[in-house]
Amino acid sequence: MIQPSGIFPRVAILGVGLLGASLGLALKKHKLAAHITGAGRANSPSLDIALRLGAIDAATTDAADAVRAADLVVLCTPVRQFPQNFRDIAGALKPGALVTDVGSTKTQVLQWAQEFLPAHIAFVGSHPMAGSEKNGPAAARDNLYENAVCLVIHAPHAERIAALWKSLGMKVLLTDAATHDRWVAAISHLPHALAFSLMNVTAQDPAALQAIAGAFIDTTRIASSDPQMWVDILLTNRPAIIAAIGEFQTELAALKQAIVDQDESAIRRRLDSARALRENLLDPRKMKEGT
Amino acid sequence: MIQPSGIFPRVAILGVGLLGASLGLALKKHKLAAHITGAGRANSPSLDIALRLGAIDAATTDAADAVRAADLVVLCTPVRQFPQNFRDIAGALKPGALVTDVGSTKTQVLQWAQEFLPAHIAFVGSHPMAGSEKNGPAAARDNLYENAVCLVIHAPHAERIAALWKSLGMKVLLTDAATHDRWVAAISHLPHALAFSLMNVTAQDPAALQAIAGAFIDTTRIASSDPQMWVDILLTNRPAIIAAIGEFQTELAALKQAIVDQDESAIRRRLDSARALRENLLDPRKMKEGT
Repeated sequence: MIQPSGIFPRVAILGVGLLGASLGLALKKHKLAAHITGAGRANSPSLDIALRLGAIDAATTDAADAVRAADLVVLCTPVRQFPQNFRDIAGALKPGALVTDVGSTKTQVLQWAQEFLPAHIAFVGSHPMAGSEKNGPAAARDNLYENAVCLVIHAPHAERIAALWKSLGMKVLLTDAATHDRWVAAISHLPHALAFSLMNVTAQDPAALQAIAGAFIDTTRIASSDPQMWVDILLTNRPAIIAAIGEFQTELAALKQAIVDQDESAIRRRLDSARALRENLLDPRKMKEGT
Repeated sequence: MIQPSGIFPRVAILGVGLLGASLGLALKKHKLAAHITGAGRANSPSLDIALRLGAIDAATTDAADAVRAADLVVLCTPVRQFPQNFRDIAGALKPGALVTDVGSTKTQVLQWAQEFLPAHIAFVGSHPMAGSEKNGPAAARDNLYENAVCLVIHAPHAERIAALWKSLGMKVLLTDAATHDRWVAAISHLPHALAFSLMNVTAQDPAALQAIAGAFIDTTRIASSDPQMWVDILLTNRPAIIAAIGEFQTELAALKQAIVDQDESAIRRRLDSARALRENLLDPRKMKEGT
């Protein structure tokens, strides 16, 4: 049940790419916003596309204008634009406005929010783990967020933001910023780093690609992800990603050494444990649902 | 069009797991074999299952018996059983019999064939790049091989084996054993090594798995693959796999260093090139069809 308190009369979405436009469509579909203003760049067709799709009701290239009447502001721009977004809107936010985001990294974002937003404005970090290797509002879907996990960072008013994502069909987990960053480094940022690197090594022997099969197709799908978004993520979640890559390097080096040594039982142990962990993953009874 | 010369009156399939049983079903479906004998272990239900599915017409636990009347023998056992299989059948093969396999590694297999089979028997190495993270004859499908790539190693009578796989709907590429082993190390064995290792590092922080999304699911699907089969592959294609892991380690270390250095243009270059290579992969006009 959607509570009346979960409805936002006026919403501002900064950035109307895949995530922003899909959010607009989802808010409309679930009747959670009466009026949505989208803010975007002047030299991009995204605002026009988002308007045409009905993801937003009004468009502006001035972020301050977009947020002036807003009860809820959602940052859907690439993460490294957040400092500029925060500066642009800081003086225009109305008292009581709630600000959140959809960024893939949280410690850095919370620091920026604290640095640039007025103390009386509530910022709640959130990270809906939805997306696609496609980007831009033309790929937007009103069900992009459904059934995916959303991580929301503990803070005053976090429960209102959690309720919002739940209303869009997400499984919400509340956690702290450092835990968030470590988790997504392990389960999202590291797999992307591996896919980018796996794709790049094929450049050394492109003829091999004639023989690719399903395993390669699946493993490299995410290597198509938007490079600018991923530069942002890799640079704003640096410490956690460097640590995750380091742990992976240790594990891969151990597997390689076991192959070099022809140490069958060491290889077998690693393969058995990988399989058991993966099978466990697939058992829905063992997956905790978000709260 | 199937040529009459492409039909084998009697076929022996050694090993009736996923690949062997699917081969039996496919040969029947395409009417390429009049009679198929399956050989397997006494203490396994696989032969019974394969018989019940109609993948084979007769079953035996004696490989020599299975091949005695066979015009075509296909090794579908785990690769490291090949030396024993070759020894078992060497004295029983009839003159003119053609022997092939479905193993994922070729230099080692050709060495064993040369060592253990009589000089007058034609062995042609083949590697249909079909399979699944499932295993066993119960998962067999008569279309498992359709539309996948099959690598066939140059040798006398290779064209007959190539014709066989083509008749089952495969895209056949003829190459040499060393090239085969390098290619599959890069596009199949390396991705599996990455998936095993990625899954294993999650054991250090299992709570992170609560937040997994599509990227992680896709990238680790192949971590569920049969451990014994993969021990075999990793040990029998050792030099090529060690080299492929080494190239990957260099690439990943360079990406990590760029993140450590906050070298935005170096990160961007790697992500742009990964994306371009991946997009290129998806363009069917740029994919060469097998010959």
